[in-house]
Amino acid sequence: MSLLVVGSIALDCVETPSARRDDVLGGSAVYFSYAASYFTPVKLVGVVGEDWPAEHTRLLEGRKIDASGLQVVPGAKTFRWRGKYLPNMNDRETLEVHLNVFGDFNPQLSEDCRGSKFLFLANGSPKLQMQVLDQVASPTLAVADTMDLWIHTQRDELLQLLKRIDGLVLNDSEAKLLTGDENLVRAGHKVREMGPRFVVIKKGEHGAMFFSARETHVMPAYPTPDVVDPTGAGDSFAGGMMGYLASQGNFEPKTLKEALAYGVVVASFNVEDFSLDRMRQIDRPELDARLKEYRGMLSF
Amino acid sequence: MSLLVVGSIALDCVETPSARRDDVLGGSAVYFSYAASYFTPVKLVGVVGEDWPAEHTRLLEGRKIDASGLQVVPGAKTFRWRGKYLPNMNDRETLEVHLNVFGDFNPQLSEDCRGSKFLFLANGSPKLQMQVLDQVASPTLAVADTMDLWIHTQRDELLQLLKRIDGLVLNDSEAKLLTGDENLVRAGHKVREMGPRFVVIKKGEHGAMFFSARETHVMPAYPTPDVVDPTGAGDSFAGGMMGYLASQGNFEPKTLKEALAYGVVVASFNVEDFSLDRMRQIDRPELDARLKEYRGMLSF
Repeated sequence: MSLLVVGSIALDCVETPSARRDDVLGGSAVYFSYAASYFTPVKLVGVVGEDWPAEHTRLLEGRKIDASGLQVVPGAKTFRWRGKYLPNMNDRETLEVHLNVFGDFNPQLSEDCRGSKFLFLANGSPKLQMQVLDQVASPTLAVADTMDLWIHTQRDELLQLLKRIDGLVLNDSEAKLLTGDENLVRAGHKVREMGPRFVVIKKGEHGAMFFSARETHVMPAYPTPDVVDPTGAGDSFAGGMMGYLASQGNFEPKTLKEALAYGVVVASFNVEDFSLDRMRQIDRPELDARLKEYRGMLSF
Repeated sequence: MSLLVVGSIALDCVETPSARRDDVLGGSAVYFSYAASYFTPVKLVGVVGEDWPAEHTRLLEGRKIDASGLQVVPGAKTFRWRGKYLPNMNDRETLEVHLNVFGDFNPQLSEDCRGSKFLFLANGSPKLQMQVLDQVASPTLAVADTMDLWIHTQRDELLQLLKRIDGLVLNDSEAKLLTGDENLVRAGHKVREMGPRFVVIKKGEHGAMFFSARETHVMPAYPTPDVVDPTGAGDSFAGGMMGYLASQGNFEPKTLKEALAYGVVVASFNVEDFSLDRMRQIDRPELDARLKEYRGMLSF
């Protein structure tokens, strides 16, 4: 089924202990859509400025991502993020954020996008996310991501959003912040009780946890020795998960679990190079081969 | 097959954000032997002072742990540790350590102990661990734990020990410290290249990783919402693992994986109360039930 993602599109500057890249393709909706494209057709809605290299659009279209909802605003600049990873490659400092054109993002969905059945509300304020949700007629599955910034500044709007979505994806520190509970198992269920049918807590190099009314799952990260740049790991995880769900057309427990595993596996490729560089090299059979290996690791 | 553990026996004072317990039964060899006792007969060798409550010995013997190698030294005091957990319940500060009688521990194994086939060298200096290893005639499987203290102060002795043991269990920060590598997958394999056939890296609330020449595995922690006191989690993990291996009499890949899973499950019970209090309430069928649930979580 059709999958729509709305979120940030960025030019990133990334520093790691051993390397640095400037002005590389990034942003939540970019990582998400690229990861999801291995599983299902994706529509990407976002906004960029006139500094946006056309080759980036071509790269996305090369994976059959429908980028017709990518709005280019003349005279404006693309969202920029600059960050630096600590030696553990799991924690990072944000050095600079310039929202630029993303600060005034006011997405007007096409008829086609309004009919999407699988919807992912990637990084953006809860206000923005609700504005998108209002436009999608009758989604089968609507899942959102959120950030510490919105928990601090738009808590009420976030709580409203939570009552309207099926799933929330957030990281471990955000789940603790939102619930005030330091135990992730309790925190996960507390977030779920705020509205969504399921909650996924991302733990970076430690994998992810899944919570629904009946189920609690834990999935370790795939143990790659080649962590080059973790940027976009959470978004590519969500992309793999949602892409697989959309490809199956349901979110039954069995499908959700396979989807989580695909999310883990796509994210493990994503971190093996800067930007989309590693994902650009792989195809679906490579994902399937690593999934098989991962499944073997977890069976006993 | 017979399982021998040699290591620290302690009276602990533990503070968590919500509670505090003084002078409770603890120590690496205590947690290890209690956890292992669900699977196989265990012999415990250690030393305590005259402040040691006899009821603690009876508690261990109640699980058929052979405590005849527990030496009580008149006029001496038992090893004491005082620690405080941070709100995340994963990190802790050591507030006080008094080695007391453990500082002069010079174990002389009985004939019976010398014939042990499965051996675990729990917390103790590499010198002490080698002294024990020298006395065990022909172990089928010898596994050791280590600590940051020994990596700093007895690195050469530790490197010697690593060439003589089959397996090493250590935590994530210790693996990074020992190898200088911040990536745990690479660090695990680097430790393995120092000698042991396999290495287990414990990650606290994030589970464990396993490395052998042919295999890399990741196991998440069982997601318990009731983390009351993480003290002894790593030792009870090792106890569950080694106890199961000894019960099977081999350490083939399939057995090792099941053993890791049992280690995870026993540790998850251990953290649900102070000291041995939670483990005292469970029996093997409860372990097996949680193992089944854990297996279900990881299969997709």
